[in-house]
Amino acid sequence: MAKQRITIISTGGTIEKTYDELSGVLANKVSVLDVMLASLELRGVEISRVSLMNKDSLEMSAYDHTLIAETAVTLARAGESVVVVHGTDRLAESGERVVEMFGTPPRPIVFTGAMRPYELRSTDALQNLTEALLAVQLVPPGVYVAMHNQVLAFPGVQKDRGAGTFVRREGT
Amino acid sequence: MAKQRITIISTGGTIEKTYDELSGVLANKVSVLDVMLASLELRGVEISRVSLMNKDSLEMSAYDHTLIAETAVTLARAGESVVVVHGTDRLAESGERVVEMFGTPPRPIVFTGAMRPYELRSTDALQNLTEALLAVQLVPPGVYVAMHNQVLAFPGVQKDRGAGTFVRREGT
Amino acid sequence: MAKQRITIISTGGTIEKTYDELSGVLANKVSVLDVMLASLELRGVEISRVSLMNKDSLEMSAYDHTLIAETAVTLARAGESVVVVHGTDRLAESGERVVEMFGTPPRPIVFTGAMRPYELRSTDALQNLTEALLAVQLVPPGVYVAMHNQVLAFPGVQKDRGAGTFVRREGT
Amino acid sequence: MAKQRITIISTGGTIEKTYDELSGVLANKVSVLDVMLASLELRGVEISRVSLMNKDSLEMSAYDHTLIAETAVTLARAGESVVVVHGTDRLAESGERVVEMFGTPPRPIVFTGAMRPYELRSTDALQNLTEALLAVQLVPPGVYVAMHNQVLAFPGVQKDRGAGTFVRREGT
Repeated sequence: MAKQRITIISTGGTIEKTYDELSGVLANKVSVLDVMLASLELRGVEISRVSLMNKDSLEMSAYDHTLIAETAVTLARAGESVVVVHGTDRLAESGERVVEMFGTPPRPIVFTGAMRPYELRSTDALQNLTEALLAVQLVPPGVYVAMHNQVLAFPGVQKDRGAGTFVRREGT
Repeated sequence: MAKQRITIISTGGTIEKTYDELSGVLANKVSVLDVMLASLELRGVEISRVSLMNKDSLEMSAYDHTLIAETAVTLARAGESVVVVHGTDRLAESGERVVEMFGTPPRPIVFTGAMRPYELRSTDALQNLTEALLAVQLVPPGVYVAMHNQVLAFPGVQKDRGAGTFVRREGT
Repeated sequence: MAKQRITIISTGGTIEKTYDELSGVLANKVSVLDVMLASLELRGVEISRVSLMNKDSLEMSAYDHTLIAETAVTLARAGESVVVVHGTDRLAESGERVVEMFGTPPRPIVFTGAMRPYELRSTDALQNLTEALLAVQLVPPGVYVAMHNQVLAFPGVQKDRGAGTFVRREGT
Repeated sequence: MAKQRITIISTGGTIEKTYDELSGVLANKVSVLDVMLASLELRGVEISRVSLMNKDSLEMSAYDHTLIAETAVTLARAGESVVVVHGTDRLAESGERVVEMFGTPPRPIVFTGAMRPYELRSTDALQNLTEALLAVQLVPPGVYVAMHNQVLAFPGVQKDRGAGTFVRREGT
C-alpha cells in the first residue's frame, strides 16, 4: 500500500518557542518541530517539511497570511495533504485567507498550534500536532483547525481568547 | 452545539501497566487512564468511562473477547462513540469479534493500545489515546484500530510483532 | 535518630517562574517549590518553608538583599539548616551580604537557583534543589551556593554570565 | 583550579533497567547512565566511567561483591573519588564488603541506586545520582550510600524493604 504523503509547513508560534537562558524569555528562534516529530510513532505516512517562517503570529503581516495560504494551496494542488503549524493568535486569519482566495483545495489543509510551548513540561503541543497529522488523513478536502481534540472547518472559526481554544463563530 | 459523547472502555494492556517497586515489575494493577485523560485538553466532547477489566491481553479468554465486543456494541447502539483501550497482543481478536458477531455498529468503535506503558518516560500511550479520541469523531460507523498515526478498519487487521504495530492482513 | 531540620526560604527567580498562557511569558507568580519538593524522595529531614518574596532578582533592592540575609541568619541562629532559593543574577549579592553583616552563621546557609525554570521540559531546577538540600546537611557552618554539581563558599563567588553558572572570583 | 576527578563504576540494578517492547519487561540490557549524565549540568568535575557489570543485584555472587569492592578501592587508591551505581537489594553487601576487606579507603566511595528505573516517568534515579555525585565531593574518606536526600556511612547500613530506602542498622 502506498504511503500517504503529508507536508508540514512551519510558520512559528507558541508551539515552536524555545527558551533563551541569557535573556530568560521564550522566543521563536529555532524550530523544535523535528524534535516533536522524532518523539512520535508515525507509520503509513511520508512526511516532508517546509520551513516557511518562524514568527509569533501577532507579528504576521497581511503578506505573511497570503504567503501561507498560497504555499498551502500550491502543495495541496500537487497532491500533498498539508499540515500548517501556526501561532494561535492569527491562525484564523490564515485559515480564512485560504478559503477566500482559493475556495476548497483539492486535498485537506489542517492548521494547528499550541497554547503552551513544546519546551514546557506541561504542553498541548504534541497533542495538537498528533491530532493534525491524523485529521489530515481522515477529513474530506477543505480547510480546518485541529486542536484540543476537535476539528473545525473554515470559514467560521475564531480563537476564544478567554478559553484558550478555537470555537465556531456564532451564526456560522 | 451539543457536545459529542465518547465512552472509553478500558480492558488493560501495556498502555495501563504500572510499576510495582517491591516486585520490580510492570503489571496491570490500577488504571492510569484518568491520569492520561487529565493531561490532555479535551474540548467539545463529553467522556464517560467503563472499566471492564484490567488484563494483559495475552491472558484474555474467548469469553473476555466476547464480553468486550458485546459491551462496545451495546454502547454504540445507545448512541455513544466508543474507544476501547486494549492490550495489543490480542487487540485484533477483539476487533474481529465485533465484526463477526455484529457487523457494522451504528457508531464508530475505535480500539487502541500501546507498545510502551504510559508510566515510561518514552511512550506511545498518549499519542495513541489522542488519536483514538480524535478518530472516533471523524470516521464513519465501523470498527477500527487507531495507533501510530494510522487508522485501519476491521476486518483484516493484524499485529506485526516484529515492527510493533498494526498492519492490514495480506489479501484483505 | 532525630530528623535534621531544614528551612527553605523562597525568594523567586528563574527556578520558580511559571508560564502565563494569556500573555505568553514566564513570570514569578505562584511558587512551584511545593511541586518540586513533592517530586523528590526526602528521608531523614524535616522541611519547613518560608515564602519571603517572589521576585526576579534583577528587581531586588538593597533592602531585599538585607531582608534575605537577616531572615536566613535568624533561622540559622534558631538551629535550622537553611536553603535559600534565589534568582541567579543577584544571588551573589545576597550571599555576600550575609557574610558582611553576620560573618559565619552557626548553621550552614546554602543558596541555589536555576538557569532554566522548573516548568521547562529540560531544566536544572530539580538538580540544583536536590544539591542544596544535600549540601546543607554535609558542609560545615558557613554561606554557600550549590548548583551544577559544585558547592562554593562565600565570600568570593560570582556568576559567570557567559557560562551560565557560578565560579570563584579571581584572587579569592 | 584543578577539576575534581570522579569515577563512576556501574554494576546495573533497577536504576539502569530499560524496557524491552517485545518481551514487555524491564531488564538490565544497556546502560542508561550516559543519558542520565547528559541530562545533568556537571561543572568543576571530570567524570570517568567504568562499566563493570550490568546485573540485577539479586543475581550477584559473592565474587561479584568482592570484585566491586576491589575495583572501587583500587580507583580510590589511585586518587579518584568513586561513585558506585548498584542494585539496592544487595547494595549493602557490597558496601560492607569494602569496609571488611579494606577499612577506610583514601578517597570517598559513595554507592547509590534507585527504587524506580530512570526509564520511568516518575523515578528517583536522577535525584540519587545527583546526590552521589555531590556527596562524593563533600564527605571525608569512607564508604557511604547516598540516596533519598540522606548520606549514611558503612558499616551499619541496611535496606528497609518496606520503606524502600536505606537506614542505619539498630545498635550501630
